[in-house]
Amino acid sequence: MIKRPEGAFRWIQGGVTAPRGFRAQGMHCGLKRFKTKDLALIVSETPAVATGAFTANKLKASCVLFNQRQLEKGRAQAIIANSGNANCLNGEAGNRDTRAMARFTARELGLKPRDVLVASTGLIGVPLPLKKIRAAVPHLAAALGPEGHRAAAEAILTTDRRVKEAAVALGDRSGEIRIGAMAKGAGMIHPSMGVNHTATMLCFITTDATVERGALGASLSQAVDQTFNRITVDADQSTNDMVLLLANGASGGPVIRKGSAGYHRFTRALEAVCLYLAKFIVWDAEGATKFVEIQVRRARTMADARAVADAVASSKLVKTALFGSDPNWGRIAASVGYARAKVEPKKLTIKLASEPVVRRGERVRGLSRSELHRIFKRKCITIQIDLNLGGAGLSIWTCDLSTRYVRINSAYSS
Amino acid sequence: MIKRPEGAFRWIQGGVTAPRGFRAQGMHCGLKRFKTKDLALIVSETPAVATGAFTANKLKASCVLFNQRQLEKGRAQAIIANSGNANCLNGEAGNRDTRAMARFTARELGLKPRDVLVASTGLIGVPLPLKKIRAAVPHLAAALGPEGHRAAAEAILTTDRRVKEAAVALGDRSGEIRIGAMAKGAGMIHPSMGVNHTATMLCFITTDATVERGALGASLSQAVDQTFNRITVDADQSTNDMVLLLANGASGGPVIRKGSAGYHRFTRALEAVCLYLAKFIVWDAEGATKFVEIQVRRARTMADARAVADAVASSKLVKTALFGSDPNWGRIAASVGYARAKVEPKKLTIKLASEPVVRRGERVRGLSRSELHRIFKRKCITIQIDLNLGGAGLSIWTCDLSTRYVRINSAYSS
Repeated sequence: MIKRPEGAFRWIQGGVTAPRGFRAQGMHCGLKRFKTKDLALIVSETPAVATGAFTANKLKASCVLFNQRQLEKGRAQAIIANSGNANCLNGEAGNRDTRAMARFTARELGLKPRDVLVASTGLIGVPLPLKKIRAAVPHLAAALGPEGHRAAAEAILTTDRRVKEAAVALGDRSGEIRIGAMAKGAGMIHPSMGVNHTATMLCFITTDATVERGALGASLSQAVDQTFNRITVDADQSTNDMVLLLANGASGGPVIRKGSAGYHRFTRALEAVCLYLAKFIVWDAEGATKFVEIQVRRARTMADARAVADAVASSKLVKTALFGSDPNWGRIAASVGYARAKVEPKKLTIKLASEPVVRRGERVRGLSRSELHRIFKRKCITIQIDLNLGGAGLSIWTCDLSTRYVRINSAYSS
Repeated sequence: MIKRPEGAFRWIQGGVTAPRGFRAQGMHCGLKRFKTKDLALIVSETPAVATGAFTANKLKASCVLFNQRQLEKGRAQAIIANSGNANCLNGEAGNRDTRAMARFTARELGLKPRDVLVASTGLIGVPLPLKKIRAAVPHLAAALGPEGHRAAAEAILTTDRRVKEAAVALGDRSGEIRIGAMAKGAGMIHPSMGVNHTATMLCFITTDATVERGALGASLSQAVDQTFNRITVDADQSTNDMVLLLANGASGGPVIRKGSAGYHRFTRALEAVCLYLAKFIVWDAEGATKFVEIQVRRARTMADARAVADAVASSKLVKTALFGSDPNWGRIAASVGYARAKVEPKKLTIKLASEPVVRRGERVRGLSRSELHRIFKRKCITIQIDLNLGGAGLSIWTCDLSTRYVRINSAYSS
């Protein structure tokens, strides 16, 4: 399992309802088969400062376009999210359906439509069965409670096998603030290069901290860039993915402003929550049997480091070799070689689990096949690529490409 | 099967020995198991004008670096090629082995080492068993003949299931010239963006035409750019791949100079040979069950058209849907959306086998699932993407991503 990062905070139970003043619930409304939960609602008791990060895909689902407009005013109070249908490429009818979801959710909660954010995930290009959602929302609203976080987290899953929740508390009893979150991932997962307003999956984050609007946006932007923007499952970037963050101030603590000590503490805790969930998404990705960290060091620029990491992480040949525990490390070198980045073969060093396999562009002699095989058989593998050309570096996280991934995705819409 | 393009030429038998003055042979020397042929030799009876196109991968195998230097003088007379070992990342020892291959092949043929080109394909980062090659070359040279083309074509295969040969004749009996070729592909196949000196697989081409050196280079460059540079199997660009072209003038015809009518006729015929073999590589790719043509139209620039085509062709989700005949066309739209190109959703039209599925960024209503399923079940599928933004367009060819591809590549080095 993924380790929870350590820091000046405590991991707690309760997901999105761990922070004070939040309620949640999830239920089956009929978008998915087999009574699987497919509709989630998260509500703050009071208006919250809100921000979001959204997919950089140029084809954005209705809910992404809707939320981007909603968040221009920086406030929201509820999130209604469905799985089983992406409501994407549905044109003006799709936009109307998204607005309707916000409207009847608001009515049920005694809010205004402008207070509600909407998220959808599932199949692209299928009309949203709005009636089913409309019929379910009153029941969902009635069942809202502090214990509903897990049901809500279940309701946003698609091909995920595990519910993904996290929560932390920071500060002492007198001034404790909490951050809670839930996420889904599994497939169509690829980090976006942009720092602002990009994301690659669904994640809803709540906090009872009192955070100034600009600070909240900056904090989320930094956290997303270091975490969700650094994972890739299949290099396919979704049309729908988003991270939403609501801060309702129910902790009663002082306002967190950008650049303050409180801001940095808050951001570090937020980043820890996001990092844990981002890695969890990779761990639980469609068909994944391996968790792979790719570290690129001493690239000329960050863009170069990223291009190299992406080339290795996206290579079907590297990923299938990892799946088969086949110590075919030459494919890692080949993918470094075709990355759109400055690479000088004679300066290139590659290590697998700290074991050098390529040094100055040449295979390391005397490596036993059994030792390499032992490394490739690990469930968690670190691939370290040293370009020896500059001062830029980063890590990204990915998984292998299995026959199960192909089977899942060859019959997804059926 | 792949259709042979039609034109002002005739398809003939004989592969690389169809042109006059060429002999070839292939045999098993011990690099591959099960007595599979793994060493090929192609020889021209007289010195030939020679040119090549090479992988754009920054990590180039020894044979690529060697041939690039050899071809600076624009002449060659023989090609020695082994499968089963890429002789890549083997450092100075690898370079020495490549030079030795040229040297003892030259000696056996009564040539100079500078007349010999070398090609290797197979596993990266394994020392080349040079002694086995050295011991085999005298036998290979002794067996050279005009009937050896097929054995030679067999000997360069790796995971290919089918031998890939082609030959055409152009002109009338009195002034007939011939072009012959053999190729291998199967995996680690991705077109390179550059026009010059890039390629993505092994292809050796012979011709008895008399071609001026600059014309030969320009002709190959154009042919490669329109054919081999437009196929992708897995988006993994190899460290070893190359196209070599030898023109020995044995037809006795007039010299073909750049820009002449003869030059254009020759180039069109060369392009037809390359197109057939390029498509054959995709048809016979590792685990492929579908042949897919991706047509991008009305892109703002050629680079945009290419980026969109590559995004769709490389998408694991598009490729697995094609494998499963799962009509999940939304994934095609999603991959267009994340391509690094100008895309305006409201102008986007996507057709599958001439059937519109997305029009102005919106799903086409009334498409029956059974009709879509019927299209997705075809062995050959055309995906047409109209960006409606400019005047640039191109077609590329790719295949699906199957469980068999994953199985082949999860145990390749074992």
